[in-house]
Amino acid sequence: MHCEVIAIGTELLLGLIVDGNSAWIGEQLALAGIDCYFQVKVGDNFQRIESAIRQGLQRSDAVICCGGLGPTQDDITRDVIAHVMGVEMRRDAAIADRIAKMFASRGRVMSQNNLRQADVPIGARPMAQMPGTAPGLVCPIGDKVVYAVPGVPHEMREMVAGTVLPDLQRRAGQAAVITSRVLRTWGMSESGLAEALAPRVEELDRLKNPTIAYQASGIEGIKVRIVAKADDTATAQRVLDREEALLRAVLGEVVFGTDEETMELVVLGLLQKKGLTLAVAEGLTGGLLSSRISAADPGLVCFKGARIGPEAGGDRRLPPRERAIAAAASVRSEHGASVGLAAVAGEREAQGAVPVALAAALDGGEHGQTVLLPGDRHRLRDFAVINLLDHLRKVLAA
Amino acid sequence: MHCEVIAIGTELLLGLIVDGNSAWIGEQLALAGIDCYFQVKVGDNFQRIESAIRQGLQRSDAVICCGGLGPTQDDITRDVIAHVMGVEMRRDAAIADRIAKMFASRGRVMSQNNLRQADVPIGARPMAQMPGTAPGLVCPIGDKVVYAVPGVPHEMREMVAGTVLPDLQRRAGQAAVITSRVLRTWGMSESGLAEALAPRVEELDRLKNPTIAYQASGIEGIKVRIVAKADDTATAQRVLDREEALLRAVLGEVVFGTDEETMELVVLGLLQKKGLTLAVAEGLTGGLLSSRISAADPGLVCFKGARIGPEAGGDRRLPPRERAIAAAASVRSEHGASVGLAAVAGEREAQGAVPVALAAALDGGEHGQTVLLPGDRHRLRDFAVINLLDHLRKVLAA
Repeated sequence: MHCEVIAIGTELLLGLIVDGNSAWIGEQLALAGIDCYFQVKVGDNFQRIESAIRQGLQRSDAVICCGGLGPTQDDITRDVIAHVMGVEMRRDAAIADRIAKMFASRGRVMSQNNLRQADVPIGARPMAQMPGTAPGLVCPIGDKVVYAVPGVPHEMREMVAGTVLPDLQRRAGQAAVITSRVLRTWGMSESGLAEALAPRVEELDRLKNPTIAYQASGIEGIKVRIVAKADDTATAQRVLDREEALLRAVLGEVVFGTDEETMELVVLGLLQKKGLTLAVAEGLTGGLLSSRISAADPGLVCFKGARIGPEAGGDRRLPPRERAIAAAASVRSEHGASVGLAAVAGEREAQGAVPVALAAALDGGEHGQTVLLPGDRHRLRDFAVINLLDHLRKVLAA
Repeated sequence: MHCEVIAIGTELLLGLIVDGNSAWIGEQLALAGIDCYFQVKVGDNFQRIESAIRQGLQRSDAVICCGGLGPTQDDITRDVIAHVMGVEMRRDAAIADRIAKMFASRGRVMSQNNLRQADVPIGARPMAQMPGTAPGLVCPIGDKVVYAVPGVPHEMREMVAGTVLPDLQRRAGQAAVITSRVLRTWGMSESGLAEALAPRVEELDRLKNPTIAYQASGIEGIKVRIVAKADDTATAQRVLDREEALLRAVLGEVVFGTDEETMELVVLGLLQKKGLTLAVAEGLTGGLLSSRISAADPGLVCFKGARIGPEAGGDRRLPPRERAIAAAASVRSEHGASVGLAAVAGEREAQGAVPVALAAALDGGEHGQTVLLPGDRHRLRDFAVINLLDHLRKVLAA
């Protein structure tokens, strides 16, 4: 079963809105075990919407049209689908009534245009969910189907989850459960990961289940996603557990977390488990580290505070490593925390990269490490933050 | 001149990444006066990428392929384009050399896969910009053209702005100059702006040039974009200048900046003009304000530092307004700055909103203001930061 997504709206092509709807639908389709090979964005133009739908019906089994169901003259998705179906529209009295009541209940005047939203191509079926004024439509065309859902995200989501996915799974005659897990990694390049996991990937290419895929996510590291298919949830979870164990055995401490565990959550978890608190000196990182940690620790259970400013980097006569260690120790005692953290940049190298000294000060000693980071200012800060957290993670795990 | 965008990557279809690249490219094309009627997302599959490119070449004059230029086996954009061009690849020695040097400068081991990025279809031309390891490509096919750019946003942007757009405009033989200017506003709703500007918008609907449009941008405020078309740059600039003056006369201090001027840049500009320095107490905002200010003031010309932590919010027995003023005064003297800034949250109201006291302490007095902000934690912080900056902007401008 292949399903295509067509996002409709000139504002999407003009970049005034980023099309998050298609991404969300794509994720839901994947998790429901339905393949999605193409997603298309098209403006509010009859001919071009028509050509996108016709092409979708040709190369896929189902098409989800998202957007263009509003009350204005721009909103023509309904009309185009009726044209492709080769049918007229009928005005649905029950929907028209609901729309009129919705306006009345909000004390707003309804223009006649709004009743266009009650028009349904003959042979199509309105979806039961109707959180707004636009009903979603299920429009069978031969043995294929076009779904129309509004572009308003919460309305779209309710209709896709409530009608589209179950209808697609019923059409696919599908019983299997598909689940996924993300392993989050830091410190290895995508090609390095690919090389390390190549033998396992080759095996999986034969086995077909589970599958794994890489996703480079900038300063969030590289994610390795495992997708498993099974007859029931418990079996799928066992497949994920087993694969996670296999991959962790190969990758070791490069894996820092799973699914929604960010680096700061992992570090805060380690601190909390050990009953430790944290303070940071942000001479180089300028508040970025604090803003991430404090967002993840809103009750300030572990995070005791920070010092930001030129002086937080420590004595400028010392080499970077010693300055970082001095700054970490000083912010630790200033805030009465169990752990102090600091990063200090060294001299930019000829190729533009900057060596950055990372330091963690805690009971039992000071831990320094130097990493070479990209030279442009914003990336330098971003990478210093994630590397500093990763440094502390490894110190705490040791 | 019609240009189509093809975003390549299975992770886009799976919704693991939201395709912001196409939106950005769409915006740039619109501003350059080039029509974009279709944007397509396709996975890392040879046949499907090929069919998307062939269709793009059929219905458009140019195709921008974004993504799939990385070093792994998944990354096949280059190969597909060579196939569509009907040519072999050659390895570009200069690019291979740059890639090898980039790895060496970062102290990382290069795998052989990385050199695939130096492969160029015969007849294609690598783009001059190469911020990463993947060169962009200009690939002429008959009188049409395929551009390939990486999916990494900052690399993609540099190549689209530096090579793709100028090349498209040259191909379009475009003589008219289209330029735009954004007025950034804070403190008025979109419907409020629309009402205030309605008379002018009606005039412009008749005049057709310039045009104005609103773009709600969350905590960046609402942008009012003026687009002007003229025979030459000087005339277009005059149209923009005149329109900006007209709109500013209506909107007053709601306009805080233009184009890329963020609120923090505007505030730093005012501080610098007056020879003032700044320190901030980040009890509520947890480093977020510092990270924005220090990113905009990397030399720390105006920004003297911050204090983050539970105690930075001032004496807990005082009401929020007094605590904010005390915290602003205390961080000001602690860092020897001319201005101290602080925000302190009050009790959450029944409807969930939170009153936040904003304070600026400087020579000549302390300035407090209370704003009602959305209650969820992340938005509360974000809105506190922008409102605090806006508060200081108005204090400094008074």
